[in-house]
Amino acid sequence: MGELCVHSVLVTGANRGLGLGFVQHFLRMPKQPQWIFATCRDPKGQRAQVRPEVTNPASIKAAAAKVAEHLGGSGLNLLINNAGMVKPKTLDSETLEDMTETYTTNTAGPLLMGQAFLPLLKKAAQGSPGSGLSCSKAAIINISSIGGSFSSFFTWDVIQATSYRCSKAALNMLSKCQSLAYGEHGVLCVALHPGWVQTDMGSSAGHTPPVTVDDSVQGMLKVLSSLSEKETGTFLDWEGNVIPW
Amino acid sequence: MGELCVHSVLVTGANRGLGLGFVQHFLRMPKQPQWIFATCRDPKGQRAQVRPEVTNPASIKAAAAKVAEHLGGSGLNLLINNAGMVKPKTLDSETLEDMTETYTTNTAGPLLMGQAFLPLLKKAAQGSPGSGLSCSKAAIINISSIGGSFSSFFTWDVIQATSYRCSKAALNMLSKCQSLAYGEHGVLCVALHPGWVQTDMGSSAGHTPPVTVDDSVQGMLKVLSSLSEKETGTFLDWEGNVIPW
Repeated sequence: MGELCVHSVLVTGANRGLGLGFVQHFLRMPKQPQWIFATCRDPKGQRAQVRPEVTNPASIKAAAAKVAEHLGGSGLNLLINNAGMVKPKTLDSETLEDMTETYTTNTAGPLLMGQAFLPLLKKAAQGSPGSGLSCSKAAIINISSIGGSFSSFFTWDVIQATSYRCSKAALNMLSKCQSLAYGEHGVLCVALHPGWVQTDMGSSAGHTPPVTVDDSVQGMLKVLSSLSEKETGTFLDWEGNVIPW
Repeated sequence: MGELCVHSVLVTGANRGLGLGFVQHFLRMPKQPQWIFATCRDPKGQRAQVRPEVTNPASIKAAAAKVAEHLGGSGLNLLINNAGMVKPKTLDSETLEDMTETYTTNTAGPLLMGQAFLPLLKKAAQGSPGSGLSCSKAAIINISSIGGSFSSFFTWDVIQATSYRCSKAALNMLSKCQSLAYGEHGVLCVALHPGWVQTDMGSSAGHTPPVTVDDSVQGMLKVLSSLSEKETGTFLDWEGNVIPW
């Protein structure tokens, strides 16, 4: 397992929770990335030039163009699709709008981000020495959830969130598809379960989750540093354990 | 394994392919259901009174009210969510519209149908003798696809269809959620893979599928007749084999 060493990284949903945690950890690394693109829906501040709304194809394309401009001729090593949402509803109270909105943000967004940033990810892979796949070369990391696993319904009595579970099962399927389509371009793709983390989302049903943002992000970054072509297309948790689909 | 013996059944997408096959098989049964509601998006003919557009909540509710009216005081035994669609695209050519449209039809539709027809399914379960679950009492059958399985990508080189795979993985998750939420009401829920069938959809990438509509439907009906509470929440194929998620 090597150290995670990336020239450039983009994190969606970076204004809070896990996204913000990723950015803070990247900033604290001994080998800090040269470029950290921290994106969110409604960025404030003069330096907020890259602002993809992950459910808006035109906005995503514009963000990719802006990132390419900043990077000059070099590629993007790491795309972390972290932006997500949950509606903690019972099955009976889910609506078409809940289903569509949650899917668009949690599943279609990562698909569109992958498409738009593929040229930059390819470029990073081509510019990296050696064969094989790794997160230091080029990777798409989809922040998924154990809620999308068919083997884990221990939380059902606490939070049904069917629209969320469906969107995350679909996100896992997308990760698998991306791994199959993008492997030949040198891009590694995995789905990660961050643990049940002390974020607004994790606490949305009024509970206190066991994992801190810091521990989760630190764990995930350690996992990322260990990934190779053997793990592309898999579903892992923040401690590196394989999660059954 | 008993014989499938239902008083009433509703099949969506019944104007062709598997849906039409189901209706024809029900009409040929020695113990024909008293009520067969064959629904599709654009029904023609004077007797077409129940016409849910499975992506339109108001139209689904209206159809449920109409079905309740026809059934008088009795319930609905079997809801077969068969309506579905596929866009045989590569991952790179999928759009937000493809993702949303496919998900709305293949995943949100079955959720809304389940919600709207739950009172009638409950009534059928309450009106049936004995404990336990069975398709002769009350069941939701979601016609899924092995394309939604994480273990089966042998067709990837033939047809990527990421929006379809994601929607079917999500439909499988929905089936699991429905089984957990509706079991206490006496309603069995499964996801079925019909085989690779000689329908318009099965042939959509220019191939000749190996399974006829007749064989697929006959196989699925045999599977339905064998189901009990042990199988609720599972994913089976038309021959009764368990498919890994």
